Amino acid sequence: MNPNILRHPGPTPIPKKVELAMAQDMISHRTEEFVKLYQETTHRVKPIFGTKQDILLLPSGGTAALEAAAVNTVSPGEEVVVITVGAFGDYFVSICEKYGFHVHKLAKNWGEACTEEDLTEFLKPLSNIKAVFATYNETSTGILNPINQLGKVVRTHTEALFIVDGVSCIGGAPAEMDEWGIDILVTGSQKAMMLPPGLSLLSVSERAWKVIEANPTPAYYLNLLSYREWASKGMTPNTPAISLIMGLSAVCDLIEEEGGFVKTIERHEVMKSMVREAMKALSIGLLTSDEFASPTITAIRTPEGLELPSFLEHLKKKYHLDLAGGLGHLQGKIFRFGHMGYCFPSDILEAVSLIEAGLQDFSYLFEHGAGVRAAQKVFLSTLSK
Amino acid sequence: MNPNILRHPGPTPIPKKVELAMAQDMISHRTEEFVKLYQETTHRVKPIFGTKQDILLLPSGGTAALEAAAVNTVSPGEEVVVITVGAFGDYFVSICEKYGFHVHKLAKNWGEACTEEDLTEFLKPLSNIKAVFATYNETSTGILNPINQLGKVVRTHTEALFIVDGVSCIGGAPAEMDEWGIDILVTGSQKAMMLPPGLSLLSVSERAWKVIEANPTPAYYLNLLSYREWASKGMTPNTPAISLIMGLSAVCDLIEEEGGFVKTIERHEVMKSMVREAMKALSIGLLTSDEFASPTITAIRTPEGLELPSFLEHLKKKYHLDLAGGLGHLQGKIFRFGHMGYCFPSDILEAVSLIEAGLQDFSYLFEHGAGVRAAQKVFLSTLSK
Repeated sequence: MNPNILRHPGPTPIPKKVELAMAQDMISHRTEEFVKLYQETTHRVKPIFGTKQDILLLPSGGTAALEAAAVNTVSPGEEVVVITVGAFGDYFVSICEKYGFHVHKLAKNWGEACTEEDLTEFLKPLSNIKAVFATYNETSTGILNPINQLGKVVRTHTEALFIVDGVSCIGGAPAEMDEWGIDILVTGSQKAMMLPPGLSLLSVSERAWKVIEANPTPAYYLNLLSYREWASKGMTPNTPAISLIMGLSAVCDLIEEEGGFVKTIERHEVMKSMVREAMKALSIGLLTSDEFASPTITAIRTPEGLELPSFLEHLKKKYHLDLAGGLGHLQGKIFRFGHMGYCFPSDILEAVSLIEAGLQDFSYLFEHGAGVRAAQKVFLSTLSK
Repeated sequence: MNPNILRHPGPTPIPKKVELAMAQDMISHRTEEFVKLYQETTHRVKPIFGTKQDILLLPSGGTAALEAAAVNTVSPGEEVVVITVGAFGDYFVSICEKYGFHVHKLAKNWGEACTEEDLTEFLKPLSNIKAVFATYNETSTGILNPINQLGKVVRTHTEALFIVDGVSCIGGAPAEMDEWGIDILVTGSQKAMMLPPGLSLLSVSERAWKVIEANPTPAYYLNLLSYREWASKGMTPNTPAISLIMGLSAVCDLIEEEGGFVKTIERHEVMKSMVREAMKALSIGLLTSDEFASPTITAIRTPEGLELPSFLEHLKKKYHLDLAGGLGHLQGKIFRFGHMGYCFPSDILEAVSLIEAGLQDFSYLFEHGAGVRAAQKVFLSTLSK
C-alpha cells in the first residue's frame, strides 16, 4: 500500500497506458509487425529530437549510447573538448579518457552553466578539435546548458562535431537538433521519455555519418554503422528491446493526447517554476540561477540547520516521497527534486506539501503553506492563459 | 484477435505473472528496495547457472555481454580458440576479430556438434591460448554442444579461460558452470528466461576475475570490474533494467512453482522429444542427430517439394503460427521451431497440429495426425512416470 511518490531524476514513474502497451504479446524482431512498429515509432520520435534524421534505438542504458557517440567518431589520440558542469559531464570525460582521446576539459563550478562566452574563450587557443562534447541537462546540478548557443559557437569556430548528452531532459525540454547544429543527440528511456530503463535513443547528422564512415571503430555492440544499415530495413542488428519500443509508441500517443510536444514542454516549464517559486517562498536556497534552470530537475540547498540524510529518509519513510540526494561534493548540501516525464502540476503541489510537512516534523521555522501557495499561484496563472 | 503463436528461438512469449511484475511501480536504483530486489533475485538465479559466483546483470542484449566476456579477458594480439558450429559461433568469431585477437577457428559443419575429440585434436598444436570460446546452444542449427566435456578438455590441455555463450538455452538446459569448469557463462533475457529482451546475465569464475583484474579493458559500459564493484553493494554502475529485474524475480517464482529448476529442464527435454518424434512420424528430416539435439530449438528440414518461404508465411497468416526460417546458407533449407521458456507440451501439440494443417493446405502427402500422435505418445509416457 506504499504509493512510492518517485520524484527522482530518473527512473521516473511509468504511465499505465505505457505499462499496458509493454505487456502486449511478444513479437519477433524479424517480422513485418516489428518493422511497422519500429518505422512508425522512430518516425514519431523525430519532433522530440527536432531532426529529420533517423532515430536509432539501442537496447542499452544512456551511458552506452554516449560511449557509442564517442567511440564511433573519434580515434585514440585525437583532440576533443568536453564541457563539464557536473557529475555527468565528468562521466563524459571518463569515457573519452578511457578511449585515449586527448581531452581538453572545459569545467565550470557545479551549479553554473557553460555560456557562449566560456566556450568561445576556451576554443581560441585550440585547433584540430575533432569533437566537442556537452551535457544539455546536467542531472547532478539541475543546469540546462544553453546548447543552442554552444552549437553556434562550435560551428563558427571549429570543424568539430557537436555531440550532446540529452539523457535527462529530452522529452521534457525543447530540442532542435538540426537547427542548433547538433551532430549526435543521445537520450535514455527512463527520464522524461516516461519508460523503464533499458532503451537509448540517438540521432546522427549527415556530417557525423561521414566522420563515422571514415573512423575505424573498435566497438561491436555499439557500432553505429551496423545500426544504420539495419535501420534502413526497419530493424536492428541484434534483438532490440521490443517491449520498450511498444511502450515508446504509447509514449508518442500520450504526447499527442497532451496536444503535441510543445504542450509537453510547456508543462515542464510550469512544473519547474512551481518548484522554484515554492522553495523561494520557503526561503530555501536553489543551487542554480533561474536563467539556466533545468525544466526536468531542480537542485535545492539543504534547509539551514537540517541534517539532510535524516530529512530525506524521513520523507521517504513517513510520506513515501522519494527525492534524490546530492552527488559528489554536493552530497549533504543539496537534494534533487525530479519533475519530468509522467509528472504533473498536481504532483508538484503534492510533493511541496509533503516537503512542508516534513519540515514541520523537523521543527523547521517557516510560514506553513507558503510554499504550496507560491506553487499554486504559478499553476493558476498558467491555467488562466 | 490474433493469437500470435510465437514459436521462435527468441524473443519468446512472456508469462502474465512476469508482465504484471514488470508493471509494478517504478523504483529508483539507488534505494534499499532496489538493493533487496537485486540481491535476492541474483541469488535465486545462481542454481540456473550452477554457480556459487555472483550473477551480474547488464542492461543490454546478450551480444553485449558476449562482447564484455571477450574484451575484459583478452587483449589485442593474444591467441584464442573459437569453436563455431553455426551462425552464432561465427558471431563470436567476429567479436574476437573486431578486437584484434589472434583467432584459431574450430569450425564444424552446420548441424554438427563439436565433440571432445574435435577439441582435443584442435588444441594439440596450439600453445599460449588465452581463452576458448564456445556456444552451448547454437540457435541457427539446434545443436547443443557437449559443453561439460569441452570444459574438461580445456582444463586438461590448456591454461585458457573457457567462455561460454549460453544465450539460447540457459533456463531450459542444465548448466553446472562451476563443476564443468566454465569461466564465464552468458545468457540473455528473451530466450528460455521468459523475459522481454534487454537484460543480459553473466557469471565469472574466480580464475577469470584474476585475468580480468590484470587485463586493461578498453570498454566503459561493458567494464566488468565496475559491475563487480557495484554488485558488492547490491547495485549496478549505471541505471539497470529495473522492470526486467522485477520480471526476473517473477521468473524465479514460476520456476519454484514448477517444482524447481530440475522440473523446468525436464519439461524442455519432453518438448524436444515431442517435436523430434512428431517430425520423424511425418517423415520430415531433422538437421541434427538426437545425440546433440537442443532442448530449446529444433531445426527441421524443408519438407520435400515445399517452397519454404510460402509455407512459413501461410502458417503465419492463416494459423498465426510464427516459426523461424533458416540463417545463412540454410535459408530455405530448414525452419526452426522454438520450444523454450514459457512453452508447454500442450503448445507443442498445438503447433504440430497447425504444421500438419498447413501441410494439408499445401497438398503434402502424409498420414494425417501421425505427427500429433507421436508427440502425444512422448507426452503421455512422461506423465505416467
